Amino acid sequence: MKRESNSKLKIIPLGGLEQIGMNITAFEYEDSIIVVDCGLAFPEDDMLGIDLVIPDITYLKDNIQKVKGFVITHGHEDHIGALSYVLKEMNLPIYATKLTMGIIENKLKEHNLLRCTRRKVVRHGQSINLGQFRIEFIKTNHSIADASALAIYSPAGIVVHTGDFKVDYTPVFGDAIDLQRFAEIGKKGVLALMSDSTNAERPGFTMSERTVGKTFDQIFAEHRNTRIIIATFASNVDRVQQIINSAYKYDRKVVVEGRSMVNIISTASELGYLNVPDKTLIEIDQLKNYPDEKTVLITTGSQGESMAALSRMAADIHKKVSIKPGDTVIFSSNPIPGNEKAVSRVINELSQKGADVIFQDAHVSGHACQEELKLIYSLVKPKYAIPVHGEYRHLKANAGIATALGIPKENVFILKSGEVLALDNQSAKVVDKVQTGAILVDGLGVGDVGNIVLRDRQHLAEDGILIVVLTLEKGTNQLLAGPDIVSRGFVYVRESEGLMEEARQVLSDALENCLRNNRNADWSRIKLVIRDTMNDFIWKRTKRRPMILPIIMDV
Amino acid sequence: MKRESNSKLKIIPLGGLEQIGMNITAFEYEDSIIVVDCGLAFPEDDMLGIDLVIPDITYLKDNIQKVKGFVITHGHEDHIGALSYVLKEMNLPIYATKLTMGIIENKLKEHNLLRCTRRKVVRHGQSINLGQFRIEFIKTNHSIADASALAIYSPAGIVVHTGDFKVDYTPVFGDAIDLQRFAEIGKKGVLALMSDSTNAERPGFTMSERTVGKTFDQIFAEHRNTRIIIATFASNVDRVQQIINSAYKYDRKVVVEGRSMVNIISTASELGYLNVPDKTLIEIDQLKNYPDEKTVLITTGSQGESMAALSRMAADIHKKVSIKPGDTVIFSSNPIPGNEKAVSRVINELSQKGADVIFQDAHVSGHACQEELKLIYSLVKPKYAIPVHGEYRHLKANAGIATALGIPKENVFILKSGEVLALDNQSAKVVDKVQTGAILVDGLGVGDVGNIVLRDRQHLAEDGILIVVLTLEKGTNQLLAGPDIVSRGFVYVRESEGLMEEARQVLSDALENCLRNNRNADWSRIKLVIRDTMNDFIWKRTKRRPMILPIIMDV
Repeated sequence: MKRESNSKLKIIPLGGLEQIGMNITAFEYEDSIIVVDCGLAFPEDDMLGIDLVIPDITYLKDNIQKVKGFVITHGHEDHIGALSYVLKEMNLPIYATKLTMGIIENKLKEHNLLRCTRRKVVRHGQSINLGQFRIEFIKTNHSIADASALAIYSPAGIVVHTGDFKVDYTPVFGDAIDLQRFAEIGKKGVLALMSDSTNAERPGFTMSERTVGKTFDQIFAEHRNTRIIIATFASNVDRVQQIINSAYKYDRKVVVEGRSMVNIISTASELGYLNVPDKTLIEIDQLKNYPDEKTVLITTGSQGESMAALSRMAADIHKKVSIKPGDTVIFSSNPIPGNEKAVSRVINELSQKGADVIFQDAHVSGHACQEELKLIYSLVKPKYAIPVHGEYRHLKANAGIATALGIPKENVFILKSGEVLALDNQSAKVVDKVQTGAILVDGLGVGDVGNIVLRDRQHLAEDGILIVVLTLEKGTNQLLAGPDIVSRGFVYVRESEGLMEEARQVLSDALENCLRNNRNADWSRIKLVIRDTMNDFIWKRTKRRPMILPIIMDV
Repeated sequence: MKRESNSKLKIIPLGGLEQIGMNITAFEYEDSIIVVDCGLAFPEDDMLGIDLVIPDITYLKDNIQKVKGFVITHGHEDHIGALSYVLKEMNLPIYATKLTMGIIENKLKEHNLLRCTRRKVVRHGQSINLGQFRIEFIKTNHSIADASALAIYSPAGIVVHTGDFKVDYTPVFGDAIDLQRFAEIGKKGVLALMSDSTNAERPGFTMSERTVGKTFDQIFAEHRNTRIIIATFASNVDRVQQIINSAYKYDRKVVVEGRSMVNIISTASELGYLNVPDKTLIEIDQLKNYPDEKTVLITTGSQGESMAALSRMAADIHKKVSIKPGDTVIFSSNPIPGNEKAVSRVINELSQKGADVIFQDAHVSGHACQEELKLIYSLVKPKYAIPVHGEYRHLKANAGIATALGIPKENVFILKSGEVLALDNQSAKVVDKVQTGAILVDGLGVGDVGNIVLRDRQHLAEDGILIVVLTLEKGTNQLLAGPDIVSRGFVYVRESEGLMEEARQVLSDALENCLRNNRNADWSRIKLVIRDTMNDFIWKRTKRRPMILPIIMDV
């Protein structure tokens, strides 16, 4: 490492703060920038028609000569999902652990980026050098295998970034979180700790993933005579492992259903993260060769996503599986905030078909609760605390833990995306703000849907549209045809013929008036008359405000 | 009462099953029909732009000569909210307890229906005779005062309908639920029990409303130096009473904010359901005369509703109250399923302004949990069980309780709205299905928005609209003007000029081709060409499917 310098380390979150999702943070020291994670966010309710959201990386593009690469903590969409989009704009190497890289590679393949992207698999305990940074990968536990915390060594000091983590003393696969290493680095003196705030409002400890296995065993023991269907997150390989274990113990064959589930399980198996006993997995078409009580289906759809396998089974539109009375369906998941109603809808549909639905105790979180956060703070003993990964309420709860443990309030930073925190052993302070934002992806379009389009979609969704068309004679503004009124999403026309006819009459009168008094009225004036007249009339009669769109042609 | 007859009693739920909301049930015996409750439902997520939903009462209108009146269990919107709409179609008397009637009268006033509607206030313990029915009002507890269960006496037997209820041994106002009366009627022999399924999935007992008062006292004691703002349901008069009690104890003045809150509190005070010590309530404009730590605001907005008072304070657009650092904000409520994200948004905004937000332990449910349901079943000992008030999963959980308590499976009926259950002491069976449905209310329009309009709104919301206009010469189909393409909610046009110009070109070619080869092409053929051409082109280029709307004029 270089001698101590006078420069400061800059930490620049480009997303992931004040929201769950779109995690991406730049670390800058003089001529070197590294980027930790590159995630997507799922669209908010008011982002109508949007498929996904990726971060604005203008700051990275403006400093492209400094940027050394992407360091990825784990393979969840909110940490890797924007890579395929961002790499198209700046081709940089990716550093990640084995399973994480396997999942990334699946995505790069889909986007035709695999061959042109440099990738390096890093082991836990190993370090990589990127410019003036050294980054060490530290073993943690999370709801996906192979998650890492990062110790980021810079000439200005060490930053420990937990990634998404929990403390699992008895993980299903591999080692427990490397608490000793956190302590060792803490002993050296850590400048700042950036820790996962997702569960910072929750007291206590998150239970071990292994407890879910016990629940499965119990449910399997109690339901020996029915088919069992279990919905869970595709990426939770350890969860799938435990289902396979219970199935094997109770002599059932396992079918995996749902595209993302099949993909991740095949990647995890290839890379050795999943241990499937011989002849346990069968194809969905083989189901008919086994009695129901000898089978288990593992499926996507635990969030009530309408196109996922479980939802299709519940709605009776799945091609190969129908729900039968007596089926035992387990939700091995909690609804993510915002999905509660969708999940409930699927539970209702399943119940109605006679399935026995179990949605309690078959899930644990992948994120640290308050006592785990206290443990990490106490091992790392950072000078500064920077809560990350959460909405404001979660960041604030994490900040409260930091101060309760003795970190002075002025050393705790709840940052906003884009803020540049410059820090070293003497001081830390927000010195700048860089451009950040949410780029909306809709179909093939990246960034071509903005606020105006969203506002229009909202307006159309609320009250529909009334289109007024008319044809004028060039030069004379003589009305040759129209006004015709066409509506969509406003009222059921056949039931409202009277209203529409009356609207046309009122509009004709207003137009005639406008054109007679003002033979040279320009089109913007005519359109204004149309809008005002229609808005008034429709509001008075219906108390609704559809979009009014006048279109004028001339011949 | 008349001698035992051979006719059966018919129970016909016209709403409220397989959903939370829109509770309305007809009871029919020979020439008599009574209707229990007449509630609205709030729109589902896919009912874009809809304000509220009311039941289809065709069956009642078709049998209007039999219908004796509306018997109302309590004053919540999902039990009274459709009255003002339904009464416009069939003027019938209303029977309810005092506070319930007060709340109903407020609504009738708004709809100019007060003078023309007969109303009778009924006391708990009192009975009314309606045709061949006698209906007894029985005291229960719920999250609104003056709630009633009903014992419905018919020549075919007695039906007990719990209404929405919980068992509160220590209610804040008035008496505990009249368990003795349930037992006494049970002793006589009850044909059927219709009981509240809302919390039937939850084990244990719902806590007493009074426990929330203790939590308030504790919070007030711990926050002596800050302003306190409490959001709760407007109709929970007992909750408001307890806030006032704590405020009085801790020497604070109380401001009530939010239109629905002010309305209900004034009705409850007038009718004697709220006991406010002198000089405790002040107007919002007087706030400035008191130090923050001597004030409490009770406000609407506990569900994150964007226009409610608390949300406006959080967003800094409330005219009279801004959130200050140090304010203590209490959510005395749980998010209703579907509102989780909205509530979280408000919590984030409040936290960001420096408020200390408390959202745990300051609420109890108003609905019975499993042990309370078991108690009622055990007191009433009905021959038949008919779970009501809930989605399918809740009804099923309630049915499970009934069978666990020894009611034979074939005597438990999970009905669908519209099913006609005919029953007497010998048998019970679904004998018919009558018309039911959801009538959508949008602005002034009742029922003029149906599935086609909703489907269009959904389509418009997803991908927007492309309108293609052209003018043809009458007779010759010569293209005089256009095709012009206008879009809304599709792409940001300035960034997509190229795309739109290309679309116009492709379309012009297709049209020219169509018109040249087919001079007499009728408009439906031309429109088809426009739709197909545009759909193909836009999908290929953007992977989106905006609505394509061709409009042709001729001159």
